[in-house]
Amino acid sequence: MLNTENTLSIFALGGINEIGKNMYVIEYGQELVIVDCGGKFADQSLLGVDLIIPDLSYLEENKHKIKALVVTHGHEDHIGGIPYLLRKINMPIYASRFTLGLIELKLKEHKLLRNTELIEINAESKINFDQLSLTFFKTSHSIPDCLGIVFHTPEGKVIHTGDFKFDFTPVNDQPSDIHKMAALGTEGVLALISESTNAERPGFTPSEQVIGGHLDEEFQKATGKIFISTFASNVNRIQQIVEAAKKTNRKIVLLGRSMVNVTSVAMRLGNLDIPGWMLIEPRELKELPPERAVILCTGSQGEPLAALSRLSTGRNRDVKVVQGDTVIFAASPIPGNEKDVSKIVDNLFQLGAKVVYGNSSITGMHVSGHGYQEDLKMMLTLMKPKYFIPIHGEYRMLHIHRSLAEAVGVEKGHTFILKNGEIVDIKGGEARQTRAIPAGDTYVDGTGSDEVGEIVLRDRKQLSEDGMLVIVVTISKFDGSIISGPDSISRGFVYARESEGLINDINEIAQAAVENFKEANPFAMKKAIKHAVDQYIFTLKMKKPMILPIIIEI
Amino acid sequence: MLNTENTLSIFALGGINEIGKNMYVIEYGQELVIVDCGGKFADQSLLGVDLIIPDLSYLEENKHKIKALVVTHGHEDHIGGIPYLLRKINMPIYASRFTLGLIELKLKEHKLLRNTELIEINAESKINFDQLSLTFFKTSHSIPDCLGIVFHTPEGKVIHTGDFKFDFTPVNDQPSDIHKMAALGTEGVLALISESTNAERPGFTPSEQVIGGHLDEEFQKATGKIFISTFASNVNRIQQIVEAAKKTNRKIVLLGRSMVNVTSVAMRLGNLDIPGWMLIEPRELKELPPERAVILCTGSQGEPLAALSRLSTGRNRDVKVVQGDTVIFAASPIPGNEKDVSKIVDNLFQLGAKVVYGNSSITGMHVSGHGYQEDLKMMLTLMKPKYFIPIHGEYRMLHIHRSLAEAVGVEKGHTFILKNGEIVDIKGGEARQTRAIPAGDTYVDGTGSDEVGEIVLRDRKQLSEDGMLVIVVTISKFDGSIISGPDSISRGFVYARESEGLINDINEIAQAAVENFKEANPFAMKKAIKHAVDQYIFTLKMKKPMILPIIIEI
Repeated sequence: MLNTENTLSIFALGGINEIGKNMYVIEYGQELVIVDCGGKFADQSLLGVDLIIPDLSYLEENKHKIKALVVTHGHEDHIGGIPYLLRKINMPIYASRFTLGLIELKLKEHKLLRNTELIEINAESKINFDQLSLTFFKTSHSIPDCLGIVFHTPEGKVIHTGDFKFDFTPVNDQPSDIHKMAALGTEGVLALISESTNAERPGFTPSEQVIGGHLDEEFQKATGKIFISTFASNVNRIQQIVEAAKKTNRKIVLLGRSMVNVTSVAMRLGNLDIPGWMLIEPRELKELPPERAVILCTGSQGEPLAALSRLSTGRNRDVKVVQGDTVIFAASPIPGNEKDVSKIVDNLFQLGAKVVYGNSSITGMHVSGHGYQEDLKMMLTLMKPKYFIPIHGEYRMLHIHRSLAEAVGVEKGHTFILKNGEIVDIKGGEARQTRAIPAGDTYVDGTGSDEVGEIVLRDRKQLSEDGMLVIVVTISKFDGSIISGPDSISRGFVYARESEGLINDINEIAQAAVENFKEANPFAMKKAIKHAVDQYIFTLKMKKPMILPIIIEI
Repeated sequence: MLNTENTLSIFALGGINEIGKNMYVIEYGQELVIVDCGGKFADQSLLGVDLIIPDLSYLEENKHKIKALVVTHGHEDHIGGIPYLLRKINMPIYASRFTLGLIELKLKEHKLLRNTELIEINAESKINFDQLSLTFFKTSHSIPDCLGIVFHTPEGKVIHTGDFKFDFTPVNDQPSDIHKMAALGTEGVLALISESTNAERPGFTPSEQVIGGHLDEEFQKATGKIFISTFASNVNRIQQIVEAAKKTNRKIVLLGRSMVNVTSVAMRLGNLDIPGWMLIEPRELKELPPERAVILCTGSQGEPLAALSRLSTGRNRDVKVVQGDTVIFAASPIPGNEKDVSKIVDNLFQLGAKVVYGNSSITGMHVSGHGYQEDLKMMLTLMKPKYFIPIHGEYRMLHIHRSLAEAVGVEKGHTFILKNGEIVDIKGGEARQTRAIPAGDTYVDGTGSDEVGEIVLRDRKQLSEDGMLVIVVTISKFDGSIISGPDSISRGFVYARESEGLINDINEIAQAAVENFKEANPFAMKKAIKHAVDQYIFTLKMKKPMILPIIIEI
């Protein structure tokens, strides 16, 4: 067992080999600081799971060491798990003003706001614990008020970049503080923990400002209503949409719960400026000539319940897309969402709209918030770290990020490609990766107060593929003789029209399986029924429905 | 009711507003010819459905009119439904030699080969029925031996393009017969039915030959084994891989069932030339230095059961991917498959391989078999049709294809964007779209001999999301009093550790719901239990598991 008393330990509880549920830990002796607590959306193979969050068991066991949760920015994959974390462990949360605004929204929904200590910080803040202290630097990203974190530790400085790109002409005063980063590099950085989302893409990420010109162009051409969809949290993009609307004398309707909520936080905190005369309610649209309206809505990822999807199928009572309207996707589909987006585009075309969609290098309506290869190399060059830990990416991204690091001078063997839970220990200036703690997915379901277990998921999967068959037999508890049944009921298994004959056969097979028992042995009887019916159905139909024998003893 | 006696009718049973299950019908009086009979893969939301084929009910009702199924080429989305069609209606099948080879493979698997009349045709064939006769022309695509079809009808010529691109330097003598197409255009084309897959992409599709140079380059750089994955049916691509292997003195292993089957058909029919010395068995690999081996395998789309996926997780006994090997994806992910492909890329990187993947305009390892906008305009220009019916595409593709047609001279209003089942009737040289027949999805399950109904799917969906709860009560058939139970069993619903208390509560609620009945009324008792338990669970957990009350009367 490693003596970790004077050791600096760095690891991820989520965010490595995945995009989503970011959660990183910096620990020194008796102090532990958490960076971010994100969620990840479940794909369809996780039946009925609504959100995935990190496994929190290590934190529960080391509750006494936890000093703080520090949040780099307000995206879901960095804040989505906070309510579930707080239900298990209370701790102070440090974040910038806008990030805190979004966290408050979330805690309010979960009725957790009252008992949580929220502490606002900015790029000039300093947080001091016993051995660890934290300072910050500004970064550019696709949401306002992002921070990188500097951990000042007895071993040296550890930098966590948060999510970033370099944008020399950002919208709304959100530049990266390159000078501070350069100074940190000059002073000496022990370890850099840097995001890897766009490590596969060559070149520099384009500036957010390039969108403005394309918006103006499209707004000037449009003769009907303009619908435009982007991420509600992309406040700087929304500001540009507001400017384009202003120039073409259009008023704005906000559609979609998160669009309404997030813009209201952003306006209140001064991150977004929409003049009062511009904002109107959906029902006021019918008073307005179509060429004076912009509808800013959620749903750019094709989410079936979001505003744009509802508009595309005519499900919004007050707002309709009609011939002559323009619909702009001001966001690229995240990998995995392409099909849902395409479906909406199809529907919008069918309504007669002009649709601006597809490859953003052609439409000019989206730029990424994550740095491409040259941005990543610039960060590595500025920081000149001794050790490098690429995070926030799938394996191939981390792999490529490592080669970028080596290309700009990080020594071979000084990059640690971790898995979630694997720990880099640094002691006496030397880093080693030897041990690991439990880390994995926790599934959250329904209202979110429940965790979903593996067995439940496995059952759901079997049920979903071949359905189920319940076989009930009532027996005498004295001698095991059959009093009633077997009776079978199936769901999700076979057609009603073919099922009658099949169900009769199954009942007969179940009866044959149990009628020779000389005593009431429900366990053995269930096993006998399951085995016989399983075999029969598989031979006949190549299927494996879930078979549930029920023995009633009376 | 339209008198269709002297009417030419054109419609799709599948392939419109979708990519997949292509099936088109040309009908004149008492003669009906089917073009293609494809399948479509089900996405995860169709639980346990393995294949989707067209609704065949119109064809069953009009069996007596059917003269033939003519197949344009051997891709799954054009031949995958044939076994299911043949089980319902027998008819002669006309196709080119290689296409027939693939159809035979499929019929053999389904044990249908013996009773089917298969008739080989080529670009010079002529098929004569009473009123309809058919001739053909060669097209270029990503599979050998593709044909376009000319229907000579009393109303004029109707052209079905099949799938196509224009490739002036194709591999293996598969050029489009532009001269024949031009002659058809000169003679006069009444209606063009043309595919739309790449209508969103500007420019010309690159030639298949560009792959060759990139393959040579990568093969020369490789120092270990080369794994290369592409569609088994892309025989021309495989021929280029064989040539690159020959130049670098490498032998070839074929991995994956369809790779072995399709290449064997292609070699037998003369579409593929692999010298005998080059082909070795997987187990012979260990005798061969790594720099002398190419492993040609299935799984470029990330299919979890295909060869490449198995290799990426070390599940192939004879063949291993190790440090220093190169893995080439010589196929782009079809939309929807990106995530599965990425997962395999991650795993391959983790095994230490060099992986050539991603955007084919950068890797140069894939070109599409479907014409881009300029190819589509070229076809429209060659054919100069009076009427135009874009097919084989989702709505936005058909929509854009229409504007391409209008740009090259098809009259406004002469393009018909149909839905599956909607009919264009042509009489006296005038086309109208007024009527429709049933057309939709038929779900095929398991061994493929079964159709899956809507109710079964709905049940599976409910089961998959919230699981189920069986509640058994044994009552006296005389007075309805409870003899045993209620006993409840849940699956896919709640954790074992929290379920005990919950199940007890549910049993109590079920008991309360039925204990006051004064007679045995199973129907009303089930309803009462379902209602009470439904409400309780929804209030408590916001979930709706499938509740199955079972009343046993003894």
